[in-house]
Amino acid sequence: MFESLYQSFTETADASQSAARLAALRAELAKHALDGFIVPRADRHQNENVPASEERLAWLTGFTGSAGLAIVLKDRAVLFVDGRYTIQVREQVDLAVVEPIPLATTSPEKWLESHLPAGTRLGYEPWLHTPGQIERYEKAAKAAGAELVAAEPNPIDAVWSDRPAPPHGMVRRHPQKFAGESAKKKLARIAAALGKADALLVSDPHAAAWAFNIRGADVTYTPLPLAFALIPRAGKPRLYIDASKLQSEPRAYLEDLAEIATPSALEADLARLGADAKRVLFDAATVPVKLTRVLKEAGGTPDIGQDPIALMKARKNDAELEGMRAAHRRDGVAIVRFLRWFSDEAPKGKLTEIGAAQALETFRRETGKLKDLSFPTISAAGPNSAIPHYRVTEATNRRIRRGIFLIDSGGQYEDGTTDITRTLAVGVPTQEMRDRFTRVLKGHIAIARAVFPHGTTGAQIDALARLSLWQAGLDFDHGTGHGVGAYLSVHEGPQRISKLSNVALEPGMILSNEPGYYKAGHFGIRIENLVVVVPLKIKGAERDMLGFETITFAPIDLSLVEPKLLDATGIAWLDAYHAKVTKLLAPDLGRDERQWLKQATRPIGGATKRPKRRKGKHDHR
Amino acid sequence: MFESLYQSFTETADASQSAARLAALRAELAKHALDGFIVPRADRHQNENVPASEERLAWLTGFTGSAGLAIVLKDRAVLFVDGRYTIQVREQVDLAVVEPIPLATTSPEKWLESHLPAGTRLGYEPWLHTPGQIERYEKAAKAAGAELVAAEPNPIDAVWSDRPAPPHGMVRRHPQKFAGESAKKKLARIAAALGKADALLVSDPHAAAWAFNIRGADVTYTPLPLAFALIPRAGKPRLYIDASKLQSEPRAYLEDLAEIATPSALEADLARLGADAKRVLFDAATVPVKLTRVLKEAGGTPDIGQDPIALMKARKNDAELEGMRAAHRRDGVAIVRFLRWFSDEAPKGKLTEIGAAQALETFRRETGKLKDLSFPTISAAGPNSAIPHYRVTEATNRRIRRGIFLIDSGGQYEDGTTDITRTLAVGVPTQEMRDRFTRVLKGHIAIARAVFPHGTTGAQIDALARLSLWQAGLDFDHGTGHGVGAYLSVHEGPQRISKLSNVALEPGMILSNEPGYYKAGHFGIRIENLVVVVPLKIKGAERDMLGFETITFAPIDLSLVEPKLLDATGIAWLDAYHAKVTKLLAPDLGRDERQWLKQATRPIGGATKRPKRRKGKHDHR
Repeated sequence: MFESLYQSFTETADASQSAARLAALRAELAKHALDGFIVPRADRHQNENVPASEERLAWLTGFTGSAGLAIVLKDRAVLFVDGRYTIQVREQVDLAVVEPIPLATTSPEKWLESHLPAGTRLGYEPWLHTPGQIERYEKAAKAAGAELVAAEPNPIDAVWSDRPAPPHGMVRRHPQKFAGESAKKKLARIAAALGKADALLVSDPHAAAWAFNIRGADVTYTPLPLAFALIPRAGKPRLYIDASKLQSEPRAYLEDLAEIATPSALEADLARLGADAKRVLFDAATVPVKLTRVLKEAGGTPDIGQDPIALMKARKNDAELEGMRAAHRRDGVAIVRFLRWFSDEAPKGKLTEIGAAQALETFRRETGKLKDLSFPTISAAGPNSAIPHYRVTEATNRRIRRGIFLIDSGGQYEDGTTDITRTLAVGVPTQEMRDRFTRVLKGHIAIARAVFPHGTTGAQIDALARLSLWQAGLDFDHGTGHGVGAYLSVHEGPQRISKLSNVALEPGMILSNEPGYYKAGHFGIRIENLVVVVPLKIKGAERDMLGFETITFAPIDLSLVEPKLLDATGIAWLDAYHAKVTKLLAPDLGRDERQWLKQATRPIGGATKRPKRRKGKHDHR
Repeated sequence: MFESLYQSFTETADASQSAARLAALRAELAKHALDGFIVPRADRHQNENVPASEERLAWLTGFTGSAGLAIVLKDRAVLFVDGRYTIQVREQVDLAVVEPIPLATTSPEKWLESHLPAGTRLGYEPWLHTPGQIERYEKAAKAAGAELVAAEPNPIDAVWSDRPAPPHGMVRRHPQKFAGESAKKKLARIAAALGKADALLVSDPHAAAWAFNIRGADVTYTPLPLAFALIPRAGKPRLYIDASKLQSEPRAYLEDLAEIATPSALEADLARLGADAKRVLFDAATVPVKLTRVLKEAGGTPDIGQDPIALMKARKNDAELEGMRAAHRRDGVAIVRFLRWFSDEAPKGKLTEIGAAQALETFRRETGKLKDLSFPTISAAGPNSAIPHYRVTEATNRRIRRGIFLIDSGGQYEDGTTDITRTLAVGVPTQEMRDRFTRVLKGHIAIARAVFPHGTTGAQIDALARLSLWQAGLDFDHGTGHGVGAYLSVHEGPQRISKLSNVALEPGMILSNEPGYYKAGHFGIRIENLVVVVPLKIKGAERDMLGFETITFAPIDLSLVEPKLLDATGIAWLDAYHAKVTKLLAPDLGRDERQWLKQATRPIGGATKRPKRRKGKHDHR
């Protein structure tokens, strides 16, 4: 009945070939007089989701996490992973040939400094690293008396016999009704924002997709066309993209905006700019060091800073916000159908994590508008819910039993991108679960209700999401919120709500509001809605103030709410939120579904309703 | 009856001589082939309070603010000041010869870049600037085609005929019972914290005073001995201090710890370290560029970073905390006597700002333990209270009338340093004043009650002090709190509560908790207590949590509190705080004072007390 088309639950990589593949790579390196090689989990754009043809790290080591870096030397290979993957990596790699190193223990550069044998010639592919990364590695290698050597083409590709073909997703125009601003206007705004630079090299495909109002299908979960672009301060931009991805309509559209060039022409164009002593702005976070060198070696000046598109893209216009709201209403209907189905099925004891993820994807597909998931669904039962970045596979798939079930998921629709987490009780939750859930909810409400002046950063308000947990000596180890794109990446910068964020929150920015709590080995809680930064009108205000509009609509499990822990404003927020959920979603629901929703969103405020609340607590299961 | 011994209310500097002095300086500069000169408000230690002999900026321009920088060129002189001084500077300087420039408009380096004529030789005294400052100015001068030239001795001194003698405050040993840790142990800890450096050059006299357990009397408001020190990783430290400031007892004490050297020996010692290719750690915030150059030019490696003493000094030990608590109880008694006196006198309509400041200083002196004020008292009536850094002079002195009176003051006692602000209503305050005061109080209480995990920075909790104001569209334009020293500077880093602070709050750190609200031209509010970061025991806690212990004890004016705006926890905090004020201070008060205090600290909580509260509101005036 339910199936997943956009997410696989099988692990494709395996480590049984690692020893042989490492040996083959080492032989290949020897041909080029290299003593080692750096293998990042990266493509040429530092994408979060990379094409199968770029999964060199997984092919070599068996490790399939979304971030990691291997250093292969003659006699050993080490693999650096962050806190999300310290357990997974040890299950995936062949520990006889690959040594995992947690990043919390040491960084690659520190490791290089103390472990690289003097005289080592350590190779790397200059398309897969940013200048900042290479600068750090070079400094470390130098300190160790070793040398970093750029190697092209990638030596791995010479020994990766069954390497998949590069992606070939067709490019589509992103309609004006969703984009809200023509590409011509955007490109003019970008050209005007270049400051002293003669041109901007766009290396982040999200930025290219936004600037040209196009979408593609080269990677999973994000509608990206892999492309570079060169936007001069004056003159026609150039878009570097495989021409066979362009059918006639998008080609004609793009040719009106830019010269279309083959990706291999980019080096020569940058060299020409260099020869003319031009200054080119590069995006420090995504540009391959290869490209900044081409410019510099030809005589140009690389200005490695922040792509101005990032901030333009982050501030959504009215059309994008309207699209996001519509996508969230549609997504909310699918979520309600899922929640109702779950409340019927979960108590029977037959559901699994994969089954739940398949069901939710199916309800989303039944909207008829789903283009993709926005990321792999986190469907986590019991102790798995305590792993914030849990990803279910056939090997880890748990049956959903009495206790906590957490589902964090999102859809890609042409009008918007969604990301929602709900934590559900199966059966009667413990008092501890209700206490923790309500503290997380209080944090969620504090962010949703926040009022702050222009110029406030995410770092300044992050603590609001934690106060209630802190008071009980608890906390959670991730940021409170990340930026979200409009039919683009579900993880978008620079805006975020985190103690590390120094970017001011500005009207139109979209962020997640997702405080959590995780008791390792027991259960986890996260409540996530998306919010838009909006100007607030306050009577008597002396300053221009901002706040958040919540755009995600789905019930919050009342069986996990301990009303005694909420104050009056908290209860009022929850009741008003639930009233809006019902008002917005009910018109698209069937009668039984509406009935279920009405019960799931019943108000808990008002002293007279208290007895009813207690009675109703378990009704909707 | 009352008098002020530690604070002057007359402006000594005057601008009538500025034209002549600028002409004399320019003639002197010409002798040295200089086209201009940079005049900072700084001494050789970047002190906040500088000796009279270092007040070159005030002598030259008439500007007496605590921060400023003049650039004197052949045909113009500009004076950069921050937002606190944009009005004052225009009243103090001769606008015909000095042009004030608000720092909010442009920075000195930006101004130099666009205004310095090509070919200009711009002088500066290398003892009065840090390497970072000079690096920025040099870059700007270079961009303008000009040149920065170190000039010694300072050309101003050649024309400043009546320059005061340098300070000559005698050095005293800071007793072990207050310091809590011997200088020997401290010096060993410092030596062990030097990392790769061979020695630390201590350029901040606060750090030297702390490390050697000494105090001095070279500047106002802070018991500083002006001194440099050199602490090697191994071997005996050297303390560079004018030997005539040392009587036999402190000299014998110090000679046991260090070699005592004359300040002029420092250059040669650094040159010797340079010749031995040593690496010396310098404090980026206070070291004169002169000293880093001496080392570098001799062949050494300057490591310009953070003085490790700053963080050691910030974490007060038990003896220091006990001293601070005792100083605050003593100070609280003086404050209560002042408040009671004020409540009698203010309604008579004869009091002035200066009179109030003199009275408060007198009550503090009557403790018999006052060594100094910790900063010039901010005694501000009516609209003056809306100027956060107001400083009363005979020219600005206002009569205290019905409305708001704000007094921000502190004392230096040998066992501790205090800093307290109280905002008082004279007569019946307006509803707006009560609303604003209560919102500020809510912010103050939110900080006082804060609970946060280890590793939390001041930036993460600063917003707690603002939430109640933000909700009404209001804010205040200063940080919530600064660090405070123990019988040292009332402004101490690196700890603070500010959106810009990236320093983790650690047990033993002392900070001010001083949210405010300022309605320009009308009234201002600030409620300030000092707090200590303390570990908290929380039942069931999963993390080690920290919080604040309030150590300032004095009544908060209940006639300005709107109880309806406080929630139950806020009322409970206020009542508990007031109960502790009474408990701690009553034993040292006379019978009438105790009676007054009891009324001033009456509880406002409890539904049955509401009618009484309304009645009591004006009773204590």
